[in-house]
Amino acid sequence: MPHSLNLKSAQINLTHGGGGRAMAQLIDELFIKHFDNDFLSRRNDQALFNVPAGRLAISTDGHVISPLFFPGGDIGSLAVHGTVNDVAMSGAKPIYLSAGFILEEGLPLVDLERIVISMAAAAKAAGTPIVTGDTKVVERGKGDGVFITSTGVGIVPDGVNISSDRAEAGCAILLSGSIGDHGVAIMASRENLQFETSIISDSAALHGMVADMVAAAPQSIRCLRDPTRGGLAAVLNELAGQSGVGIVIDEARIPVKAQVKAACEILGLDPLYVANEGKLVCICDAAAAETLLAAMRNHPLGRDAAIIGQVVADPHHFVQMTTAFGGRRIVDWPVGEQLPRIC
Amino acid sequence: MPHSLNLKSAQINLTHGGGGRAMAQLIDELFIKHFDNDFLSRRNDQALFNVPAGRLAISTDGHVISPLFFPGGDIGSLAVHGTVNDVAMSGAKPIYLSAGFILEEGLPLVDLERIVISMAAAAKAAGTPIVTGDTKVVERGKGDGVFITSTGVGIVPDGVNISSDRAEAGCAILLSGSIGDHGVAIMASRENLQFETSIISDSAALHGMVADMVAAAPQSIRCLRDPTRGGLAAVLNELAGQSGVGIVIDEARIPVKAQVKAACEILGLDPLYVANEGKLVCICDAAAAETLLAAMRNHPLGRDAAIIGQVVADPHHFVQMTTAFGGRRIVDWPVGEQLPRIC
Repeated sequence: MPHSLNLKSAQINLTHGGGGRAMAQLIDELFIKHFDNDFLSRRNDQALFNVPAGRLAISTDGHVISPLFFPGGDIGSLAVHGTVNDVAMSGAKPIYLSAGFILEEGLPLVDLERIVISMAAAAKAAGTPIVTGDTKVVERGKGDGVFITSTGVGIVPDGVNISSDRAEAGCAILLSGSIGDHGVAIMASRENLQFETSIISDSAALHGMVADMVAAAPQSIRCLRDPTRGGLAAVLNELAGQSGVGIVIDEARIPVKAQVKAACEILGLDPLYVANEGKLVCICDAAAAETLLAAMRNHPLGRDAAIIGQVVADPHHFVQMTTAFGGRRIVDWPVGEQLPRIC
Repeated sequence: MPHSLNLKSAQINLTHGGGGRAMAQLIDELFIKHFDNDFLSRRNDQALFNVPAGRLAISTDGHVISPLFFPGGDIGSLAVHGTVNDVAMSGAKPIYLSAGFILEEGLPLVDLERIVISMAAAAKAAGTPIVTGDTKVVERGKGDGVFITSTGVGIVPDGVNISSDRAEAGCAILLSGSIGDHGVAIMASRENLQFETSIISDSAALHGMVADMVAAAPQSIRCLRDPTRGGLAAVLNELAGQSGVGIVIDEARIPVKAQVKAACEILGLDPLYVANEGKLVCICDAAAAETLLAAMRNHPLGRDAAIIGQVVADPHHFVQMTTAFGGRRIVDWPVGEQLPRIC
C-alpha cells in the first residue's frame, strides 16, 4: 500500500467501509497496529483459539454513549469494561474480545485513533485481547460518530453456578461500592455542568474482583449483576422477578458519594436509577456474606463494598427500601428514560 | 408486567433502551419469544455453553444494510448468514450466535418484529441459536432504523488448517457460484429499478457446503473466503497480498447470471467488485481441486461452482484476469465506494 492514513486531518468516509484498499489501510494502520496481537495480524475474518473442555460464557454489549469522551473514560474503554463485566457476572474468567465498529462519515480519524488506543489499553490491562472485528461506515446523519459492539468469551470455573434465577429468601445482598458515578459524570459532561469536585465515571473491569470472590466462596454466590442502565433499581427488580422473590434494602447502607448525591439533586435524578460501569451486585448465601464482603473490600475496586439488604419471600416480587427516615418504600422499575445514551 | 407491546402501531422510543420495564418487555415479547431457546430465557447477561477441548473460531460482523428489506432477505437473515459464513470460512462448524441491536427511535415495531422473525428462522435453519444479545436505542437521526452486530462461535475440526496466508503457487482457485447477485439486488431495490427477471440476493448460510468440502479433502483446503464487500476482486487481492503470491483467473470461467450482467451494465458496475452473501472462494492444492469441486457441486448452494484460476508466483502480488478477448488485465483493489451500505 503506497500511502498511509492521514491521521491528523482526515475524516472517515464511505471508502473506509467499502472492502477495498482504504478499508484495508484503516484496519492495518489503526486496528491491527494498536490492538497488536497475533490473531488480528493474520488478517482472517475470524480468530481461532484453544479452549479446554468445559463451560464457556459469551456476552455481547453495544455501546452508543454520548459524548464519546467523558471524565474517567471514553467509548473505547467502556466497550472493553462493559463486555468484560457481562462475561465476569457468570463467574467466568474473560479471555478474548471481538469488536464491531459502526463509524459515521465525517468522524475525525484523530478521534477514532484516540478511541482505539484507549480500547487497546483497556483490553491489555484486562488481559482480554481483541482478536477479531469488523468495520462498517454509514453516511453522515445515519449514525453518531462511533458505535462499538463488543463480544466477550470466558471460561467458567468448575463448581460455579451463578444465575439470576437463584436468589432465595434469606440470601444476603452485597454491593461493591458507591452508585451513580458513571451516569452523573456523563450527565454533567453532557450539560457542561461544573461541580466543586469533579465527578468521574467508575468505568472499570470487575473480573479481577469476581475471581477473588469466586476463590473465597465458589459455591455460595447465587447471582451477580452489574447495575448499568436503569441502575441498582433495575437490577434488583430483574433479580427479584427472575428468582421469584422479594428484596429489602436499607438506604443508609447504600454508598453514594456526597458530590454525586448533590449533583443528583441538581439534575433531578435518583441515584438508585443512575447507571454504573464499575460496580456489581452479589446475592449470596447469608453464611458466606462476610467472607465475600472481605474478599470484595480487599480488592481496590471493592473498598467501599457493603451488605445492603436481603432477599425475602414475596409473591409480588417487590423491591422495598427502608429509608433514612425509618419508613419503607417500593423501589419500582425505572419508567420513562432519564438518561439516554448512557452506555 | 401488566401491559404488552403494541406491535401494530407502536414505534421504538428511548425507553426501549433504558434498562427499565419497556426494555424488559421488548426483550421478552420480541427477542426471547422468537429466538426461543433456553439460553435466552434464563435472562442472564451472558450465555453459558459446554465445549469439548480443542480449537474454537470466533467472528463478528456488523450489518448496516439499506434498505432493511430486499429481494431474497432482510437485515435479520443477513446478520445470521454473514456471521455463520465468517465462522465457517475457517472450516469451523458454527454453533452459537449473539446479536447486538442498535435501534433508531421511531422504528416501527412491526418492522422490528418482521426482522426478528426472519432472523430467528435463519438461525434455526442454520442450527445456530442466538443465545445472548443486547439492545440499544439512539435518538431519531442518530441511527438508521436497525443496525445488527452478530458474533458467532464455532468448533474447528482437527486437522483443518485454513488461513488467508496459505495460498502457494500452483494452488487451484474455486468459486462456488455466480457473482454479483446480492449487490445488484440491493442496488436495484434501492434505485427502484425493474428488470425483466427479478434479481434476488444470494444471501445464504454456507457452513453446510463447507462441512462437505472439509469432509471431502480436510487437509487440502488452504484458504476460504466469502467475497462480500468489494466482491471477488477485493477477496482475491487480499488473499494474494496475505499469502505473498499472484493470482490468475479466467473471465470465461466466472459464472455471472445474464440478468446480473445486464443490470451491471445499466448501473455502471463491474460484477467482480459487487458484493455476494452466499458465495465462497476456495484456494486448494491442485490435486484436490476436482474432488472439492465435486463436493461443492453436490451441494445445492454450489451447483454452479467452477475452477476459475490458479495461484502463481508473483513478487507484485497482482491479481490478473485472462479476458474473454484473450488479453490479460490487472484486477486491482476496489477504489472509491460504488456500493455503500451493501451489508
